[in-house]
Amino acid sequence: MRRAFLFGIFVLEVTFLFTEGVQILQDDAHHYRTKRSISPSRRTEIRNMSPNDRPSCPPGQTVPPTRVNTTVRLEDLRREMTNNGIHAYIIPSEDAHQSEYPSDYDLRREFISGLSGSYGLAVVTSTQAALWTDGRYFLQAEDELDCNWILMKMGETDVPSSTEWLISVLAGITNPKVGAYPFLINSGSWLSYEKALSKENIIMTGTNEDLVGKIWTTGRPQEPDSPINALPLKFAGRSWQDKLADMYKAMTEKEVDAMVVTGLDETAWLLNLRGDDIAYNPFFLSYIIVEKKTNITTLYIRNATSKLTQNPTDTETTQKLHEHLNTREDGNCTGRTGACVKVMEYQQNEVKNQVQSVAGNSEMVLVSFSCNYALFSSIPEQKRLRENTPVALAKAKKNEMERNGMRASHKRDAEALITFMAELERKVKQNVEMTEVSAALDLKKYRMEKLYNRGLSFPSISAVGSNGAIIHYKPSNLTDRRITTSEMYLLDSGGQYLDGTTDVTRTFHFGTPTDYQKECYTRVLMGHVDLAMMKFLAGLYGREIDAIARRPLWEVGLQYRHGTGHGIGMFLSVHEGPGRISLSHAPFDSDSPLDDGQFFSDEPGYYEDGQFGIRLENIVMVKEELDLKYKFPNTTFLGFETVTLVPYEPNLIKYELLSQAQMDWINKYHEKVMENIGTTEFQNRNPEAYRWLESRTRKITRTVNFSAVMSPSVLLILVAIISQGL
Amino acid sequence: MRRAFLFGIFVLEVTFLFTEGVQILQDDAHHYRTKRSISPSRRTEIRNMSPNDRPSCPPGQTVPPTRVNTTVRLEDLRREMTNNGIHAYIIPSEDAHQSEYPSDYDLRREFISGLSGSYGLAVVTSTQAALWTDGRYFLQAEDELDCNWILMKMGETDVPSSTEWLISVLAGITNPKVGAYPFLINSGSWLSYEKALSKENIIMTGTNEDLVGKIWTTGRPQEPDSPINALPLKFAGRSWQDKLADMYKAMTEKEVDAMVVTGLDETAWLLNLRGDDIAYNPFFLSYIIVEKKTNITTLYIRNATSKLTQNPTDTETTQKLHEHLNTREDGNCTGRTGACVKVMEYQQNEVKNQVQSVAGNSEMVLVSFSCNYALFSSIPEQKRLRENTPVALAKAKKNEMERNGMRASHKRDAEALITFMAELERKVKQNVEMTEVSAALDLKKYRMEKLYNRGLSFPSISAVGSNGAIIHYKPSNLTDRRITTSEMYLLDSGGQYLDGTTDVTRTFHFGTPTDYQKECYTRVLMGHVDLAMMKFLAGLYGREIDAIARRPLWEVGLQYRHGTGHGIGMFLSVHEGPGRISLSHAPFDSDSPLDDGQFFSDEPGYYEDGQFGIRLENIVMVKEELDLKYKFPNTTFLGFETVTLVPYEPNLIKYELLSQAQMDWINKYHEKVMENIGTTEFQNRNPEAYRWLESRTRKITRTVNFSAVMSPSVLLILVAIISQGL
Repeated sequence: MRRAFLFGIFVLEVTFLFTEGVQILQDDAHHYRTKRSISPSRRTEIRNMSPNDRPSCPPGQTVPPTRVNTTVRLEDLRREMTNNGIHAYIIPSEDAHQSEYPSDYDLRREFISGLSGSYGLAVVTSTQAALWTDGRYFLQAEDELDCNWILMKMGETDVPSSTEWLISVLAGITNPKVGAYPFLINSGSWLSYEKALSKENIIMTGTNEDLVGKIWTTGRPQEPDSPINALPLKFAGRSWQDKLADMYKAMTEKEVDAMVVTGLDETAWLLNLRGDDIAYNPFFLSYIIVEKKTNITTLYIRNATSKLTQNPTDTETTQKLHEHLNTREDGNCTGRTGACVKVMEYQQNEVKNQVQSVAGNSEMVLVSFSCNYALFSSIPEQKRLRENTPVALAKAKKNEMERNGMRASHKRDAEALITFMAELERKVKQNVEMTEVSAALDLKKYRMEKLYNRGLSFPSISAVGSNGAIIHYKPSNLTDRRITTSEMYLLDSGGQYLDGTTDVTRTFHFGTPTDYQKECYTRVLMGHVDLAMMKFLAGLYGREIDAIARRPLWEVGLQYRHGTGHGIGMFLSVHEGPGRISLSHAPFDSDSPLDDGQFFSDEPGYYEDGQFGIRLENIVMVKEELDLKYKFPNTTFLGFETVTLVPYEPNLIKYELLSQAQMDWINKYHEKVMENIGTTEFQNRNPEAYRWLESRTRKITRTVNFSAVMSPSVLLILVAIISQGL
Repeated sequence: MRRAFLFGIFVLEVTFLFTEGVQILQDDAHHYRTKRSISPSRRTEIRNMSPNDRPSCPPGQTVPPTRVNTTVRLEDLRREMTNNGIHAYIIPSEDAHQSEYPSDYDLRREFISGLSGSYGLAVVTSTQAALWTDGRYFLQAEDELDCNWILMKMGETDVPSSTEWLISVLAGITNPKVGAYPFLINSGSWLSYEKALSKENIIMTGTNEDLVGKIWTTGRPQEPDSPINALPLKFAGRSWQDKLADMYKAMTEKEVDAMVVTGLDETAWLLNLRGDDIAYNPFFLSYIIVEKKTNITTLYIRNATSKLTQNPTDTETTQKLHEHLNTREDGNCTGRTGACVKVMEYQQNEVKNQVQSVAGNSEMVLVSFSCNYALFSSIPEQKRLRENTPVALAKAKKNEMERNGMRASHKRDAEALITFMAELERKVKQNVEMTEVSAALDLKKYRMEKLYNRGLSFPSISAVGSNGAIIHYKPSNLTDRRITTSEMYLLDSGGQYLDGTTDVTRTFHFGTPTDYQKECYTRVLMGHVDLAMMKFLAGLYGREIDAIARRPLWEVGLQYRHGTGHGIGMFLSVHEGPGRISLSHAPFDSDSPLDDGQFFSDEPGYYEDGQFGIRLENIVMVKEELDLKYKFPNTTFLGFETVTLVPYEPNLIKYELLSQAQMDWINKYHEKVMENIGTTEFQNRNPEAYRWLESRTRKITRTVNFSAVMSPSVLLILVAIISQGL
């Protein structure tokens, strides 16, 4: 059982980077599947877990000042639970759309527990409260959770899953009921809970109200309500009318009459709209229902009538929302010629009723894996097809204009990053104080100056020395460290542009790295390059090629515990499904094969706890390989085109470890970077950055140790030199 | 849909090499899953398929002499079907144990259809008969099936699955029923059929009798009834008493009270017994039921009482069966002290009744994925745990003595192969007539002379030129070709030994290969070596590292359409589960992670239709890597130890394509081969073979083209030479 448990954890760890939002529940379900039942002694053990198990909770310990007092909140919630006749209440981190970054309004789990980290699951019973989180937040949870809370450190030995805990603590209660607000929990998680709990005669029940929302009467942030702008066709590449026609075609093929679109990146992509409800994501709270039979497509947004007629707020947008959607000012389609999108008010229960009614008129309704349980369960079981929506698949496979936009935005993004890096290196070497936080702020300024920039795509990870070993590090004033010539510096950042989303990581050393640091960097680079230059059969899943990027580290007994690549959107999510490049012992249902026109990150890393972190990340596009040396009959091969244009750190490369093919790839890549970024115009504008770029993109060649040639039976020692440096 | 269909086929193809037996049904189920329903026009199209679609069936065509007349057999079967009230009958290729190689007695599908190939599925309705097979048998099926049969060429466009065909042809029948003999179909396939057919209101029903067996009244081979011998402890490495104790422990961990063991390699392994009921497999028809509560283990075999007291027939065996099992001569345990195995008569319905009764006394019964539906369905649904048995997992992870036996038997096997190869090469070069068939017979003689040899582990694939491109080629007098200096020769063969099972493939060219042939061979070798020297995280599945072996071919647009590695037994199956090294877009439930002590083949290949085939196959053992350069905390790394000891074909290697690491690996491997096989004793006994071996294991080193060193900006051209050859 230990073994099975560790697998669960491994799956969890390797998928961290891009499924933060839904991972706890999935792991929970996976973990449960591996066990048939829980022994009576184990149940007692679990039941006896207590907040006093935490180091800072027993009497006499100092209370951290950062702790949130949740006593009153828990009392309020328990009163509501009693009113609803439930014995336990589950509070996940997600919003109704299973967003990776929910808006502040939706941070219910943070409100009830006090933990501000992005990753957690709270469960409250009439007498106990427990919070599950992962290694990133163990220390923070200890500081932020008050002693009402049991801290469940996921991945540690003997920590039960939330299902196991519920089963153990509810024993003895007659007709036990576990509740959750069904809009806030995805259908897969709900069904897993339901299946596991029902074996123990515990009923999973949906509450009519969001109980945490109900008691959160003071201090709750406003519900987001940002303006919605049309994304001009020159960026989107395909009109929403054409996209909708594509969806009809896909729906016909799948023999579904209707489709409920719940993911915020899906609603934004389908109708070529962008908003600003969620930090780092140009989204707006919305649902779309597409009905093929009646030819009605309905968009649900907040304050629909006012938004339809507002003037656009984005300088590149010319049409009002109702004009873009060919809708009357009141959101109706009556009398419009041509395709029209009906616009209605975003109201959870209204949408639910509408789904119910659409299902009544349909034989089959398509919903995605991440659809919340409230909408999912409004469709009778025999009428629902649960799979990736055609929206998700079409969105991932970028059209020609989107591909060009991704290339162009990555070029501008690289200019910003290179300019910033050149300046940073000079400052650090001149002993000017630069820290993780100030560097991230400076870089943001450079990005924001770029054409079409619309902010960052995620909070920058700017990490010095040992902070770099914390995979999901977020710089803050509490942990801020100065960037010096004696430690490594890891910078993972990205921007949102009207024509693309970027995400790039480079690791630097501005002084003299150790030989071990160089070997680690070089092996990360080798895996990164091996993946980038790989050719492979069409139809493969990312999980089938991920090992390529890990091999150079494995070879010497090292590894990294996250996925190698996540999908990325076009002015959408920086982590976009459904495909991924990640080891996955238990593949996700939503996983989808690598396909021409999809964009992924290529980001192996290495992390030495308490010492340093290394990660190298480019964005690559999957593309069909048309001119390989030979041509196997009836076979399509795919490869990658790298769109990120930022040089590596020569200071950290042990050239003698590289194969000729790896060396050739790096030379060619640097040549491409120089060609694209190092223009005369760039040189005139940024002479310092140009010199920096030039010095980092010099061609590397090998020469041969002569003594080795003299004695052919001895292993050749290949030494690398920078030929221009001779 | 085309795309999804092709995926199905791909899965099929890549897993050919080791799951021949059960693949058709699995593919069927997979294919069905990808479609929600079949359109009315498609149903009509499928219903209208006819034997006349085959080129040789319309009137006026010549009837091949090899055709089997099945008219009477089908009439007989249809009469039985009517008596049983069923409208269609499914006849798979497998026996009650889902054996890869069933005995002649069990070749029901061949009897009813005429097709003698190993791979097929027959379905008969009251008016039609259809046979599904794969590309290997398309031509053979055309020759052997008479015109009662529709030929379903799996993998070709628009060929329906058996489920789709049944749904289409049974339309219009009131209360349609599809029958099968539930002992001959595994539970997974049955459940898939049941699920898919029930959606169309077709009932899947088990017949009480084997209808094909019932009508097969003349010419049916005897039911196998070979002697059973105990395998001495010096080969098995662990007594059956200890193995049984291990099983009890595993059953306690899994919280099951009983276990039904149905795989013939599992029954043989668990009790350290071997038989000869099935060609190439030292098995005997049997079941084992292990009951933990009552401490009763029952073995079911044919003619139990006479076998218990027979004298052993194997020279290495000293005990009679009843002595080995500590059983009374009548198979009872009454009065025996110590562990005892009760022995009863192998009779399908008796075993079924027993399973039913054991299930009645148990809370949970474990059965494997391949358990037949008859036994599976005798256990109430809530009481069955369907997963790999602990027998399968323990059997795959060889004990110390088994590991040593595998090494020792591979060494003896290599001596036989090397001696044969040296002689073959001389004869071919001296223009002595040697053919695929005669070579295979010669090699068999050399193997049979070896200590502990007990025959071959599978029919040798001995294939010249274009025959080598037929992946599952079996030499026969009809296709026999002479081995010459102008074509490639592929030899895939193996032996059964009391201390191990071997399986090795080498490809040769005794003349002057083309540059293209050399490149293909070298790229196959590169993948083979890359996998052999790979280090990887414990817990990985083979499907996560398979791409490593394919990459060198993919790089130039080439590929092979089979798995890279199958498990292998210790004097058991040459294709042993549950782990495998194979791309698998839809992972099998039974797949299991790579683990220390498991043995796999490493056998990439390349096949050029109508031209040549290349495959290189070694057996490798998974082993923990204890002295890698660095040590990541709390992490286990695995690697492979190669146990096959046969040199490669220097004539076919383009050394300049190899990396230094690949070259080093090959040199080290050849050194090990020479050390192990090229002893003075071997030299004295086989001077010719010794010289052959020596010439093929010479160390390869590189030197450097001097002009390249002179101009460092030019790509270095590395040329390989044989240093001793200088």
